[in-house]
Amino acid sequence: MYYVGIDLGGTNIAVGLVDEEGNIIHKDSVPTLSEREYPEILYDMAMLSLKVIKDAGVSMKDVKSIGVGSPGTPNCAEGILIYANNLKFRNVPIRAEMQKYVDLPIYLDNDANVAALAESIAGACKGAKHSVTITLGTGIGGGVIIDGKVYSGFNNAAAEIGHMAIVVDGEQCTCGRKGCWEAYASATALIRQTSNAAVANPTSLINKLVNNDLTKIDAKTAFDAAKQGDRVGQELVDQYIKYVAEGLANVINIFQPEIIAIGGGISREGEYLLKPIRELVWQSVYTLEGVPRTTITVAQLGNDAGIVGAAMLGKIM
Amino acid sequence: MYYVGIDLGGTNIAVGLVDEEGNIIHKDSVPTLSEREYPEILYDMAMLSLKVIKDAGVSMKDVKSIGVGSPGTPNCAEGILIYANNLKFRNVPIRAEMQKYVDLPIYLDNDANVAALAESIAGACKGAKHSVTITLGTGIGGGVIIDGKVYSGFNNAAAEIGHMAIVVDGEQCTCGRKGCWEAYASATALIRQTSNAAVANPTSLINKLVNNDLTKIDAKTAFDAAKQGDRVGQELVDQYIKYVAEGLANVINIFQPEIIAIGGGISREGEYLLKPIRELVWQSVYTLEGVPRTTITVAQLGNDAGIVGAAMLGKIM
Repeated sequence: MYYVGIDLGGTNIAVGLVDEEGNIIHKDSVPTLSEREYPEILYDMAMLSLKVIKDAGVSMKDVKSIGVGSPGTPNCAEGILIYANNLKFRNVPIRAEMQKYVDLPIYLDNDANVAALAESIAGACKGAKHSVTITLGTGIGGGVIIDGKVYSGFNNAAAEIGHMAIVVDGEQCTCGRKGCWEAYASATALIRQTSNAAVANPTSLINKLVNNDLTKIDAKTAFDAAKQGDRVGQELVDQYIKYVAEGLANVINIFQPEIIAIGGGISREGEYLLKPIRELVWQSVYTLEGVPRTTITVAQLGNDAGIVGAAMLGKIM
Repeated sequence: MYYVGIDLGGTNIAVGLVDEEGNIIHKDSVPTLSEREYPEILYDMAMLSLKVIKDAGVSMKDVKSIGVGSPGTPNCAEGILIYANNLKFRNVPIRAEMQKYVDLPIYLDNDANVAALAESIAGACKGAKHSVTITLGTGIGGGVIIDGKVYSGFNNAAAEIGHMAIVVDGEQCTCGRKGCWEAYASATALIRQTSNAAVANPTSLINKLVNNDLTKIDAKTAFDAAKQGDRVGQELVDQYIKYVAEGLANVINIFQPEIIAIGGGISREGEYLLKPIRELVWQSVYTLEGVPRTTITVAQLGNDAGIVGAAMLGKIM
């Protein structure tokens, strides 16, 4: 059997046909044009699903379901997207609307949960009963897999690990709270930290790397400077790694997953990032000597995680 | 059917016979005398179990299992207690040793997990699929119930929620890490905060309440002073409630349990404690308007939670 997965983003709608093992057989995308009303967007999602199935040369009777991964807060049981900020969606009946065009079961979950499911079935967390996928991006996305299924609490709103306070009354977070992990260890936070350091240290390599145009600073700038021996860059990287590690130690003390996969652009730093993180984490966690330890690794599926995970919602139902 | 539950503590071994609904039919206890070697302690546990069954007038064939709740880190699958500080136990084969004397299945889990299971089956969290029980005591114990079962990660060491850092590089915790929730919101932390405030404010009501003997300060002192209008007491209570609430907001953002039960001596403050906590929590959590909210309540089973939860380990297997 095959499963359609839809990665609904603010910019693009990406649709893929996925096999039982989580491999993408064929994929396609169209712009979301997110200013539009939801019926138009959902019509495009349904039509692109049918096109992808057809273009893959697969019969409709071999397709089991369509899964949708979306930003925001879903009501998974009823297939309703309660809220998605970057889509201006409120209480959108994803399932009911799409079933006007496609006679298949429609499943829905949020993008971070879907990414965790993808890594669990076909990526870095394959084989683990319990795993957590953390995406270090604009925010920090968290997805928790328990017993092979997405854990989302009694109201589908769980696993907001980025909004775990690690510094009471600390940095302001976009969620309204202060001191969230996301406000210290997201890519956005690292860019803010790097910009502040560039202002405070105008002769540092950071300023040179961006030709003194601080708006060009991205999440890679501090790492690039550190790798070239810049003191300010190294201090930024050390501090950032410390914040990532403190949050991961919390995740381990709380969940003790077999595997934690780290995704998002910053995860491309690979072992340069993970090796010092592991050292800090093992200094911090409560786990006793002799008790098996969580593996901390890089997420494998990158941008495909959205399609694969959304598709696999149909498999674990 | 009936289930034996053993609450193995540093001071006493409490044993109870429990019915299917989690009611204690009969209970008894003996001193642990924790300086002894483990075979003697486990012999006493087995003998007291047999005595409790006999004294209750129940036939052995109507008893399904014995469950043991213990401090420390268990290997639940193999029935081995890997480590328990206050018992000087390391790699103690609880199951194998007790089965020398009693021909029943023997189950093992740690005390915080067992308390959560008890509240889930017969206490404050009854009826909830997902719940968390937090015990504010010497430390902060956490127990997580997911789908009606104890969640303990891939290595039985999960749910150490008290060792979630809420202030990076903050107060020293007994676990070796800095800034753990336990270092701010346990009874021990409140006593430390109260003592420090008493030293800094020698004319406060706190000093009067303990006749200027600061060693008499307990977790109730600040609450008692606050209730009598003392400014220092009120500030202590406000600060303590803030720390409890920050940790609970993290627990909600991460787990979104249907119910959180708060146990331990401090929970006897009841609504005086919980009402302001809820207000702070609802200001902090990520949960959207319109999404169902976690109920925060007081744990119901008190000291019986250890016996009831240990017994119920046999029911959920």
